[in-house]
Amino acid sequence: MGLNKVFQFFIPKEKKFFPLFEAVAENVEKGAVLLNKLLLLFNNEEEKHSLVAQIKQCEELGDDITHKIFEELNKTFITPFDREDIQTLTSSLDDVLDYINSCAKRLELYRVTELPINTIEISELLVQASRELKIAIGELKNLKHPQVIKNACVKLNEIENQVDDLYYMSISDLFENEKNAIELIKKDAILKTLETATDKAEDVSDVLKSIIVKVA
Amino acid sequence: MGLNKVFQFFIPKEKKFFPLFEAVAENVEKGAVLLNKLLLLFNNEEEKHSLVAQIKQCEELGDDITHKIFEELNKTFITPFDREDIQTLTSSLDDVLDYINSCAKRLELYRVTELPINTIEISELLVQASRELKIAIGELKNLKHPQVIKNACVKLNEIENQVDDLYYMSISDLFENEKNAIELIKKDAILKTLETATDKAEDVSDVLKSIIVKVA
Amino acid sequence: MGLNKVFQFFIPKEKKFFPLFEAVAENVEKGAVLLNKLLLLFNNEEEKHSLVAQIKQCEELGDDITHKIFEELNKTFITPFDREDIQTLTSSLDDVLDYINSCAKRLELYRVTELPINTIEISELLVQASRELKIAIGELKNLKHPQVIKNACVKLNEIENQVDDLYYMSISDLFENEKNAIELIKKDAILKTLETATDKAEDVSDVLKSIIVKVA
Repeated sequence: MGLNKVFQFFIPKEKKFFPLFEAVAENVEKGAVLLNKLLLLFNNEEEKHSLVAQIKQCEELGDDITHKIFEELNKTFITPFDREDIQTLTSSLDDVLDYINSCAKRLELYRVTELPINTIEISELLVQASRELKIAIGELKNLKHPQVIKNACVKLNEIENQVDDLYYMSISDLFENEKNAIELIKKDAILKTLETATDKAEDVSDVLKSIIVKVA
Repeated sequence: MGLNKVFQFFIPKEKKFFPLFEAVAENVEKGAVLLNKLLLLFNNEEEKHSLVAQIKQCEELGDDITHKIFEELNKTFITPFDREDIQTLTSSLDDVLDYINSCAKRLELYRVTELPINTIEISELLVQASRELKIAIGELKNLKHPQVIKNACVKLNEIENQVDDLYYMSISDLFENEKNAIELIKKDAILKTLETATDKAEDVSDVLKSIIVKVA
Repeated sequence: MGLNKVFQFFIPKEKKFFPLFEAVAENVEKGAVLLNKLLLLFNNEEEKHSLVAQIKQCEELGDDITHKIFEELNKTFITPFDREDIQTLTSSLDDVLDYINSCAKRLELYRVTELPINTIEISELLVQASRELKIAIGELKNLKHPQVIKNACVKLNEIENQVDDLYYMSISDLFENEKNAIELIKKDAILKTLETATDKAEDVSDVLKSIIVKVA
């Protein structure tokens, strides 16, 4: 019996989920940080390609862990909370990373030469949101401090409101000043994808609230 | 013990949800009526700003009640129907108002000077849809007449079909006659947001059907 | 007692769902095949109108079966798997057909004269996806071979990845070569609708995985 097997033998099956959730949250944060870096450096062709590739890797790792969580669900009779909530939590986190990847991809595909205003600020808020998600998800394993999760959810809501304000300001500027329709389409789509990533982070917060509702 | 406390003491906890649901539905209807008014008066700058602000207030009130419902869920052991359904019902209603607010915001941000055809008609149907929602949600508290809810759901479906027809007609006209790409983008986005608001009203109808399925 | 009544009498109520699921899956496949045909023949005005009408019929039939499934849920106490899963499965399948119909409609409304690259290839993958869905859904009735469903889900995931690659390639080409903004908007929207239809097919795959999780 290898060490890994012994380890698995002594860990109650339902506890296996937490390191996986934490790995997903860690990965989302990594993706958000990389996207922020990409938006700061997108004019450097070499950096751009490397960062887009790293974000793609992040997203694929996310898919792998998501797949592993669903597989564990298959094998586990007792789960730490409702199966449905585990599925929703997992796929919402996956959504955040999907939109991060989609934003990176658009930046490359559209051959963007200029960012709409507030893009960097919004991506910084997305990094903050991913950190709140990591804090909240780190608390899931014992649930001794549901208040920590609640606080993170409040902050995620505040971040979302700030993103909304910045997003609308940016859209307003775009439709006032951008006279080139194709440039407007590109910038509008990049802003939308970025804003949706933070929306999805708030969806995670909704699942977290729903988990606390049932467990607490 | 204040009057409010006495009142709360004698009302079974699970009944507290219904006034909240009704307040949300009322609020959605108010938002739909304000949006219709805004679309009729958008060329009047002063009226426009006032109506956009009122719709924003509506949306914020909606967020508050939504938050209150989730809080009540925290404190309540026995709920009138599945917790998950209460959550879905609440967030779907919130979605309708989000799209109403988003449509109002676009109208302001895009500095729209001309509406696409059928916009007023679609917004009138959204008002009708919000009234059907109010009727159906008013029936939830006793569920003695599930047929009333079913009828509202049938009407919501019919309204959605009418909106679809008007929407497609308007899009067809847009792509045939609008030669200014940026104007086309604006009008397309306003129509889409309006149509999505009515879509979300139909999502509420789906939750209602699912609640009846389980309770009846 | 008519033959149909006798037949219904001897079939346990919960088994009535499977022919309905299979009818929906069959219908989704039919829609996907018709859309592929439409994309190949869209320059022929007569064929185009006939195919758009056939796809519309498909979508309406889909709505009818969906409605019938929800009605059966009303009347049936014991269901073959969770009510919620039946609802999600049904509405996800309906979503695939909605996007197929929406893509067909856009093709007509936009008066498209030229398709973006990879459109035919993506629509062929959508046909393949609809066939995997049919295989998986055909297995639901006995669930003796959950591996068949799992395999279909793996294939649906592979198809989705291929669609993603083709989609991004096509978008890249569009933003590099299409200088007419309105043409770009049309092609972008058609690609997006087609890609979303295959996304929704993967959503069905997620529900299927969740059903196996609980039943197996």
